[in-house]
Amino acid sequence: MSAVTLVVSPTDGPDDTAALGVLAELGYSAADLVAVIGKTEGNGCVNDFSRTLAAAAWEPRLPASAVTVFSGGTEGVLSPHVNLFVRDETRHEGFDRGLVAAAGRTRVLSPAELGRTAQVDAVTETVGKLVAELGVSTGDVHFVLVKCPLLTSAKIAALRAAGREPVSGDTYESMGRSRAASSLGIAVALGECDRAAALAALSGEAEVSSARASASAGAELDDCHVLVVAESTAAANPLRALHGELTDAIDLASVTALLDEVERQGGRVRQVFAKAEADPSGSVRGLRHTMLTDSDVNSTRHARAAVGGLLAALKGDGAVYVSGGAEHQGRSGGGSITVIYELPSRGGEAT
Amino acid sequence: MSAVTLVVSPTDGPDDTAALGVLAELGYSAADLVAVIGKTEGNGCVNDFSRTLAAAAWEPRLPASAVTVFSGGTEGVLSPHVNLFVRDETRHEGFDRGLVAAAGRTRVLSPAELGRTAQVDAVTETVGKLVAELGVSTGDVHFVLVKCPLLTSAKIAALRAAGREPVSGDTYESMGRSRAASSLGIAVALGECDRAAALAALSGEAEVSSARASASAGAELDDCHVLVVAESTAAANPLRALHGELTDAIDLASVTALLDEVERQGGRVRQVFAKAEADPSGSVRGLRHTMLTDSDVNSTRHARAAVGGLLAALKGDGAVYVSGGAEHQGRSGGGSITVIYELPSRGGEAT
Amino acid sequence: MSAVTLVVSPTDGPDDTAALGVLAELGYSAADLVAVIGKTEGNGCVNDFSRTLAAAAWEPRLPASAVTVFSGGTEGVLSPHVNLFVRDETRHEGFDRGLVAAAGRTRVLSPAELGRTAQVDAVTETVGKLVAELGVSTGDVHFVLVKCPLLTSAKIAALRAAGREPVSGDTYESMGRSRAASSLGIAVALGECDRAAALAALSGEAEVSSARASASAGAELDDCHVLVVAESTAAANPLRALHGELTDAIDLASVTALLDEVERQGGRVRQVFAKAEADPSGSVRGLRHTMLTDSDVNSTRHARAAVGGLLAALKGDGAVYVSGGAEHQGRSGGGSITVIYELPSRGGEAT
Amino acid sequence: MSAVTLVVSPTDGPDDTAALGVLAELGYSAADLVAVIGKTEGNGCVNDFSRTLAAAAWEPRLPASAVTVFSGGTEGVLSPHVNLFVRDETRHEGFDRGLVAAAGRTRVLSPAELGRTAQVDAVTETVGKLVAELGVSTGDVHFVLVKCPLLTSAKIAALRAAGREPVSGDTYESMGRSRAASSLGIAVALGECDRAAALAALSGEAEVSSARASASAGAELDDCHVLVVAESTAAANPLRALHGELTDAIDLASVTALLDEVERQGGRVRQVFAKAEADPSGSVRGLRHTMLTDSDVNSTRHARAAVGGLLAALKGDGAVYVSGGAEHQGRSGGGSITVIYELPSRGGEAT
Repeated sequence: MSAVTLVVSPTDGPDDTAALGVLAELGYSAADLVAVIGKTEGNGCVNDFSRTLAAAAWEPRLPASAVTVFSGGTEGVLSPHVNLFVRDETRHEGFDRGLVAAAGRTRVLSPAELGRTAQVDAVTETVGKLVAELGVSTGDVHFVLVKCPLLTSAKIAALRAAGREPVSGDTYESMGRSRAASSLGIAVALGECDRAAALAALSGEAEVSSARASASAGAELDDCHVLVVAESTAAANPLRALHGELTDAIDLASVTALLDEVERQGGRVRQVFAKAEADPSGSVRGLRHTMLTDSDVNSTRHARAAVGGLLAALKGDGAVYVSGGAEHQGRSGGGSITVIYELPSRGGEAT
Repeated sequence: MSAVTLVVSPTDGPDDTAALGVLAELGYSAADLVAVIGKTEGNGCVNDFSRTLAAAAWEPRLPASAVTVFSGGTEGVLSPHVNLFVRDETRHEGFDRGLVAAAGRTRVLSPAELGRTAQVDAVTETVGKLVAELGVSTGDVHFVLVKCPLLTSAKIAALRAAGREPVSGDTYESMGRSRAASSLGIAVALGECDRAAALAALSGEAEVSSARASASAGAELDDCHVLVVAESTAAANPLRALHGELTDAIDLASVTALLDEVERQGGRVRQVFAKAEADPSGSVRGLRHTMLTDSDVNSTRHARAAVGGLLAALKGDGAVYVSGGAEHQGRSGGGSITVIYELPSRGGEAT
Repeated sequence: MSAVTLVVSPTDGPDDTAALGVLAELGYSAADLVAVIGKTEGNGCVNDFSRTLAAAAWEPRLPASAVTVFSGGTEGVLSPHVNLFVRDETRHEGFDRGLVAAAGRTRVLSPAELGRTAQVDAVTETVGKLVAELGVSTGDVHFVLVKCPLLTSAKIAALRAAGREPVSGDTYESMGRSRAASSLGIAVALGECDRAAALAALSGEAEVSSARASASAGAELDDCHVLVVAESTAAANPLRALHGELTDAIDLASVTALLDEVERQGGRVRQVFAKAEADPSGSVRGLRHTMLTDSDVNSTRHARAAVGGLLAALKGDGAVYVSGGAEHQGRSGGGSITVIYELPSRGGEAT
Repeated sequence: MSAVTLVVSPTDGPDDTAALGVLAELGYSAADLVAVIGKTEGNGCVNDFSRTLAAAAWEPRLPASAVTVFSGGTEGVLSPHVNLFVRDETRHEGFDRGLVAAAGRTRVLSPAELGRTAQVDAVTETVGKLVAELGVSTGDVHFVLVKCPLLTSAKIAALRAAGREPVSGDTYESMGRSRAASSLGIAVALGECDRAAALAALSGEAEVSSARASASAGAELDDCHVLVVAESTAAANPLRALHGELTDAIDLASVTALLDEVERQGGRVRQVFAKAEADPSGSVRGLRHTMLTDSDVNSTRHARAAVGGLLAALKGDGAVYVSGGAEHQGRSGGGSITVIYELPSRGGEAT
């Protein structure tokens, strides 16, 4: 079993692991960690060493089964923090279901495979395995997070020296290609499309998206780190999840609908995980945006800042998880969104 | 008299003056313009030539009495547009008051005066003159917009060659100093503080702010352009204004309060003018932000993107006026905000 | 005839046309201008409004036959300036040849044509026409400068709405595609390759480059502006040109060889025109560079700064013309370079 | 004793410690390291986590006596690498002097002390101690490198909460203030000025500089790391050092003079250590530069790229150490420069 609780903790810097002390105060240890999902304060793009630094600080402290996902970029009011998914099998009285999570890794992907069918398949396989491990149906899954590799200049050069052409010769663009493949792998695993449709979408010939997929690319790994979060009747805890979709970057209504549902249930928002992107059409609701013509600041940075401004205001603080680049993660120009919330206590606890 | 209407029009680029065609279709001409207030798509900082380009395109087309204020930076979902304040003395039936506006310029400020007492005084004088011209009390004023100069390397070098020290040797910082002086000049003119308090605030020894002040600095001018917007019983039109204050960059409640009041009156939001800044304390509601340690993207850009994300979502489109750098414009870490809205028609029109 | 002299003049800003005063002092007028070739101080990328501003300031002052080429980006020690090619048919005593120049424009290129065969052909045609107009052989040509369009978000969206796919969906990348097509058009016109080879090179299947080509892309125009500079025995003036090739971005030897030849002839360097790029292999002389993995600063900015640092030191001042993005302009990782120099006077002047 | 050899090794990333393998092949171990001086590929400014990552990777592998100095920013053709100063007491036949080095740390500096007298004094003391340890006269010292702290938002906020005002409220500016204090501390220790002059210079009332000082600031430490490199007759090895001064960022002559001297001695350049800055006057040799008005790219990045372009071309590869921000390190607008070179072997070796 893998019932979990969620601990959200601010960080003083990418290498700040003080959240482990918070865990200890709550009676947990690092050995209980399923995943560390952090927002770090780099540029969130190719040369974001804040992610690598965070991974270097956290990974030696984690059990082999746990994964890290560090998403760079805390533009605007976003605040650097970590979200700890912590194994806690406590059965809370009055609850007949609860939040569960499982983490794993794909095999190492070669640079030639990045952004291509092999990556889609590897992610599909790992997500499928984790869903099975959780013993839930795909309908119970509310959030699948993937951290996947990108192509550096060195990897591109090595590929070309070997007579292979990478999916993109542009390092920044390779991030989007990698996110796309990961997200389509998630969509297949969750039954949102079949493999053929995913591969057609990968080559731009079909539109496929998953409102539960969240993918982020980085130079700090060679395989994909995967986290699946679901609700399960095998657990009994007050945490719940809802997912939805931003139809565009200013889609207040969709977020409000989710938050209203939490309120209707008497719940309290614990965290919001959202993807954001610059609408590839160049406009939002018919008005031109300039995120894709700004050669000084990449569009993923703009998108995080803007959607982060909205979500932080709605949540009431800046420690929200907003990640940039939403290829196949919610519809084009929008993004996937998952809210994790806590229902009020319904009595004492029973083991 | 100077009753005005407001035309908000998207632009295709900084030099796009197609809004003049929109004016013509509405029966106005360029000669009716009181002010052109635009968001242009540069970096909003020292070397933002989008502002200069917009001024070069618009100013030859305007009457001598009109002013331009181009605020650079359409980060995130913000959409480049112009807000035309157009003289329209039509007396609309059923209204006993209406929106009025007046525009003017201070004298040319020398680089040595920038950010200093002379600038405070010059702005105070011009704002005072415009308020008097409008024949309103300072309590009727809801918005005072100032575009003011900054210091370039060349100006700093010239000053130093003349044995004078500029208010700052850093070109980007000079923008903040100029905005500060302009805003304090507004505060004095509106009676929100006396001159002594303003000068103390200028030197960091007092806290003074105006929720109606909006100042923006640029290299494209040597004097200050000033626009005063008020309500007056001498006019009779359906436009109204409300002003408030963001207490911080995620202050949803203050914005909602303004929008609720508009709704209570049956009005329709026409435009939102807001200032935004990175909280100088380095945190928002106790959580660290990274806008002031990001050496790749200046903090004013971050602040516009974040607050723009919120306000665009609330307004429902990205053509909102969000300007970065809120020194003395609303409280520290927050910013001033003015909503211009339109009441429903109450009958036919009478000249 | 079109014998020319060259006036290099620093600028105070993109819209500074004070060089016209310099012209007047030298006895020329704006009507004598063949071309204004400037370095302006924007980012040199998609949203560089310094180029548009410069064009807006200069173009109304020029004869219809003249062209402007504004190349953005004065990173590092590069200094904003204009290079005026001025018609001057004076026959200087003691000279039996001299510098000549001709300028023209291609037809307007549609966004769908950008970066494709149509652009190659249009540039080939215009360069060919100008070479013929000069009455020189292609071997006498030392420098062909092209300013060509790029794709903005709006153009990309319009193309896609019409069911057409642009050469690139990335605005920054479209600049490189446009420079590539222009440069290959130059190579064909100069007889450095045939059209088939150029088209193969355009699609990445062949390597073609011209050491005399210099192409720069911008949003400020829809056609291509072309300038051809050659030596001709029909002119008699002390200006001469040499061209060469940087084999990489630190190729001191090739520059020194050109400068030594100038010195050997007793000449004085008047201007250096060079292209620069981040080596697409990711390394220079076997050592990794980071220009292609820097998501904060585009590689063309890095390349201009670095090569500008070298050439400015060699020339002795920062008013050199270094332009970024050297696709097919000199060999890969290097760039084309043309030196214009002046031989010592050989007596009086004769009309 | 502390005779040293120098190993220059390229890195694959900030956390690449493969140079330790190079050391091993040469018969050294990590225990022999005196200092690791690296160029890492971040932005070289406040939020440069490449430095922190490099320190995290290297410091656990070093003896307690060794220091690290990681200088961020490999703009343009600069190539990420490490310079290892390795203890090697071998007495090479035919040499009666050789390169020596000593490393140490100041006490921890409080944020309130940063950029102020206390920092000057602490650096003076540590440099003095290291010079004494080496047993050389200050005239034999050719290079003093200091890595010193900066102020983050958190440190500034903490200071202000305690009622103290930091030397600067701007995080980027704090780097310059810290470099200034360190460099003046070096100047005092080397006898280039007295303490009173240094303190006057610190407050802008005097001009003091050291052509042997190289200071770099970072968030990755709280004390100052110091390395002193000298020639000594107590050693006997083929390494030598020369120092000079760039009078401005395009001062080819000064560099050439140093390189010519190396050549005159039959030596081979092993490394060049230089500081660079944007001339604070806003111009270089009378021509305007735009490094101080570029709000997208900080001036230290521009300066590294430009001077790096020149020095890499002169050295013949990009693995040169160019660091940005040259306050009191060589004259204003220029920078200090030290060349380490190797004389030809003069026979066998004797222990």
